[in-house]
Amino acid sequence: MTRERRRRSGGRRQAADTVPQLPWRHVENHFRPMEVLRPEQLDAVHDYSMRILEEFGIELMNAEARSILEGAGAEVDHTTGVVRMDRGLVEEAIARAPSTFTLTPRNRERALDFGGHSLNFTTVGGPPGVHDCLRGRRTGNHEDYRDLLRLAQSLNIIHMIGNQPTSPQDLPPTTRHLDTYHSTLTLTDRVFMLTAVGEQRALDGIRMAAIARGETLDQLAEHPAAMTVINVNSPRRFDDALTEGLMAMARHGQAVTITPFTLMGAMTPVTLAAALAQQNAEALFGVALTQIIRPGAPVMYGSFTSNVDMRTGAPAFGTPENTKANIASGQLARRYGLPYRTTNANASNVVDAQAAYETEMALWGAVMGGANLVYHAAGWLEGGLTASFEKVILDAELLQSMAETLTPLAVDDESFGLEAMEEVGPGGHFFGTAHTMERYKTAFYQPLLSDWQNRESWEAAGSRDATQRATDIWQQLLDQYEEPAMDPAVREELDAYVARRRERIQSEGLGSE
Amino acid sequence: MTRERRRRSGGRRQAADTVPQLPWRHVENHFRPMEVLRPEQLDAVHDYSMRILEEFGIELMNAEARSILEGAGAEVDHTTGVVRMDRGLVEEAIARAPSTFTLTPRNRERALDFGGHSLNFTTVGGPPGVHDCLRGRRTGNHEDYRDLLRLAQSLNIIHMIGNQPTSPQDLPPTTRHLDTYHSTLTLTDRVFMLTAVGEQRALDGIRMAAIARGETLDQLAEHPAAMTVINVNSPRRFDDALTEGLMAMARHGQAVTITPFTLMGAMTPVTLAAALAQQNAEALFGVALTQIIRPGAPVMYGSFTSNVDMRTGAPAFGTPENTKANIASGQLARRYGLPYRTTNANASNVVDAQAAYETEMALWGAVMGGANLVYHAAGWLEGGLTASFEKVILDAELLQSMAETLTPLAVDDESFGLEAMEEVGPGGHFFGTAHTMERYKTAFYQPLLSDWQNRESWEAAGSRDATQRATDIWQQLLDQYEEPAMDPAVREELDAYVARRRERIQSEGLGSE
Repeated sequence: MTRERRRRSGGRRQAADTVPQLPWRHVENHFRPMEVLRPEQLDAVHDYSMRILEEFGIELMNAEARSILEGAGAEVDHTTGVVRMDRGLVEEAIARAPSTFTLTPRNRERALDFGGHSLNFTTVGGPPGVHDCLRGRRTGNHEDYRDLLRLAQSLNIIHMIGNQPTSPQDLPPTTRHLDTYHSTLTLTDRVFMLTAVGEQRALDGIRMAAIARGETLDQLAEHPAAMTVINVNSPRRFDDALTEGLMAMARHGQAVTITPFTLMGAMTPVTLAAALAQQNAEALFGVALTQIIRPGAPVMYGSFTSNVDMRTGAPAFGTPENTKANIASGQLARRYGLPYRTTNANASNVVDAQAAYETEMALWGAVMGGANLVYHAAGWLEGGLTASFEKVILDAELLQSMAETLTPLAVDDESFGLEAMEEVGPGGHFFGTAHTMERYKTAFYQPLLSDWQNRESWEAAGSRDATQRATDIWQQLLDQYEEPAMDPAVREELDAYVARRRERIQSEGLGSE
Repeated sequence: MTRERRRRSGGRRQAADTVPQLPWRHVENHFRPMEVLRPEQLDAVHDYSMRILEEFGIELMNAEARSILEGAGAEVDHTTGVVRMDRGLVEEAIARAPSTFTLTPRNRERALDFGGHSLNFTTVGGPPGVHDCLRGRRTGNHEDYRDLLRLAQSLNIIHMIGNQPTSPQDLPPTTRHLDTYHSTLTLTDRVFMLTAVGEQRALDGIRMAAIARGETLDQLAEHPAAMTVINVNSPRRFDDALTEGLMAMARHGQAVTITPFTLMGAMTPVTLAAALAQQNAEALFGVALTQIIRPGAPVMYGSFTSNVDMRTGAPAFGTPENTKANIASGQLARRYGLPYRTTNANASNVVDAQAAYETEMALWGAVMGGANLVYHAAGWLEGGLTASFEKVILDAELLQSMAETLTPLAVDDESFGLEAMEEVGPGGHFFGTAHTMERYKTAFYQPLLSDWQNRESWEAAGSRDATQRATDIWQQLLDQYEEPAMDPAVREELDAYVARRRERIQSEGLGSE
């Protein structure tokens, strides 16, 4: 929908003034993480995960990666592709991984730290579908993709762009990544995730990120710009194309997040203990591979452990099991000194109370687990099959509210306001006191989405629920979106790179170079 | 609405089988509480709260209570009613309060502990309005009250009945408490909150609780049955009738929760530090009064600190400030060794995403604050002006999900399921393994409200959102409600007590005896 069409659309709009939101900030979580695993339970999960790597191994479908691990001392069965690593080798490799790293996009003010107390939020990545309440559900296309980027760029609480907030089905698969990278680099100035399905897609992203920063690949390796998420095909399988991408990223010093996709009952045994052990084995296997390829390469420990509905096999998110997994996985990541990524997903088909409470449960699990990155933090609907415009707004409110909750408290003599208490007296009110007047504009979090009017005023304003108000807000944000400035020479170089590579891929196929 | 009318109603109904829910359980929270106040900040809040009590004092409108405190060493201004207590007196008094206590209703299996790791949930208490999606919004009446009790009794996760889940406006104010106590004691077997507005309403509740247990008032004092919440008219005022109720409860050894109603910016200065100091002063003043009246009487530290919307003055709940207050108040309660009550309120006018996320934020704050009692945990809507049938169901899901998240993890050799991992192999799935088959029925939390169907199945089932499904569920629960058994002699005695007291009040007024 163009700006003009949106302006003409019948939906009731908020006043034209700017949408209230928090300023850009690095969110830090200084709360002590929760622990669902007692120390001896944590040891047991570690021990079983090492047994999985030693006794059963991981099927590594990429032959080059198998050779690399064999050279490092792993036991490789080249017929089945199964690689077994003993715990000494695993522990030696993962010990080389940095405990924190920084990713720097073209706008250096949007650089992000991963590790320690940092907490970063990304858009959803990967849904083939898109939904909003004006236009309904549809297959995602490039303009939807660009609108989702504009929303993300407009919302300060979204630190980072996930891998394709929707996967644009109108673009040819072999060159789609060029267009999505180009859109991401021009419409946003944020760190973004690359599509590392095969070496070439990863390399194109790395080169374009270097162009956008005006730097060489060596400089980019010194100060990495991009990340990719390598999903493990759980149980115990790393596929060929993703492993190629992993190797390309690691070789160029770009960040890799290893995320086993471990739905209990389907991809792992039905217990959380087993799921954690399997997740740990798979994640550490991938982490070790990055460090054997390039010691010190930025890497994250990823978790995506939830359960399925055992009656239907449907995935569930934001469940008690998912919440506990988010907390326990943080204990594991900290045990190995690795930055930690998890997710605040939900299983609702609509932006309703369920979408909100499941997302909150998983988000609190992530925060209490000490996550450094919450992937899919904004826009995830239908178990990840759809990117929802209204869910982006709902999630931005949840994330802002969490960021404010994590902000340390100011406690000083002035803040206690004793003179105001004396002035007001028993049964009085504080609205008019000098202490209040000096502080009221910034005293409290101003919500993006919540409506605190009393019922009469709320009814007079149309009885609009949170989802309907979210429709107003995303429209307003898109109307007010401003493209971040880019040096025309850089833009030209990006355009030329895409044109050159598109032509080459169209004539020769994507392949490996 | 009668059962028959409900059966004829047009709403689509779930299958007639039992609503899935967790069994009755005592929820325990063994997580280490979060801390938003650093140790020196906690000291500062304490110190300022003591200065408030020493320098400004509390207006205590009840003359008898003033005399009692004067006798104990407080400084009383009988003209203004202001009572100042020095910190030595306060600390000496509150040191007598028990760190845990138990309340035992007529069904001894529903006894509840307050303090330590215990976590109890009550219905909403007090709304003058009622709402459900079939019949809309209305003034609460006795049948609504009874339906809300039936819902609470049907839901195992609701441990306790708040003070009048709706306040039945069709009953005369002077005898209303007799009817509500009678309904509560016959329709539920849970601990319940008394209406302690004035001595007589408290005494009627205490006597009726004794009748229901078949015991004397002395036996009841030995093993208390009931609780009341004394709201402070913040800033710094205890009203006459509630203080009468407080004294009656304490004298009879029944539990009192002292809850300052401290909305930052209105009833307290605009900063959280000031609100916490004022809340602490007011709460400890009330706690001290209970202990001066009856050393060792069961008492709780209550918190209801949130903020207002500074543009409109409307109260807000589930905000970052409210969430932090819930956490910080737990630090204060633990400092004094007192059981801790707080709330998971929200400010939405409708059971939507906002209602869900605000409730979750406040609930997580309560849990991370180590709350022993979450009041208004089920049914609160419109800032507490309305009891919502759908919100009861939504909240029951949130509370169940939290209870499951707090359940310790089983980690033993069998749970790791290594034989299943070996059996399944890379890329396989675990649905059919023996390890899964033995465990799948009870492996995961089965939701009350969440719908995990894929979009196609969900659409085929009518595209019903969480709020619409909640309408189905409360109807089903009311249809299946069973009144808990009661000894006919006890029932007769309760009936007779109500008849006798009604007649007396009608002829002589409520008054004091």
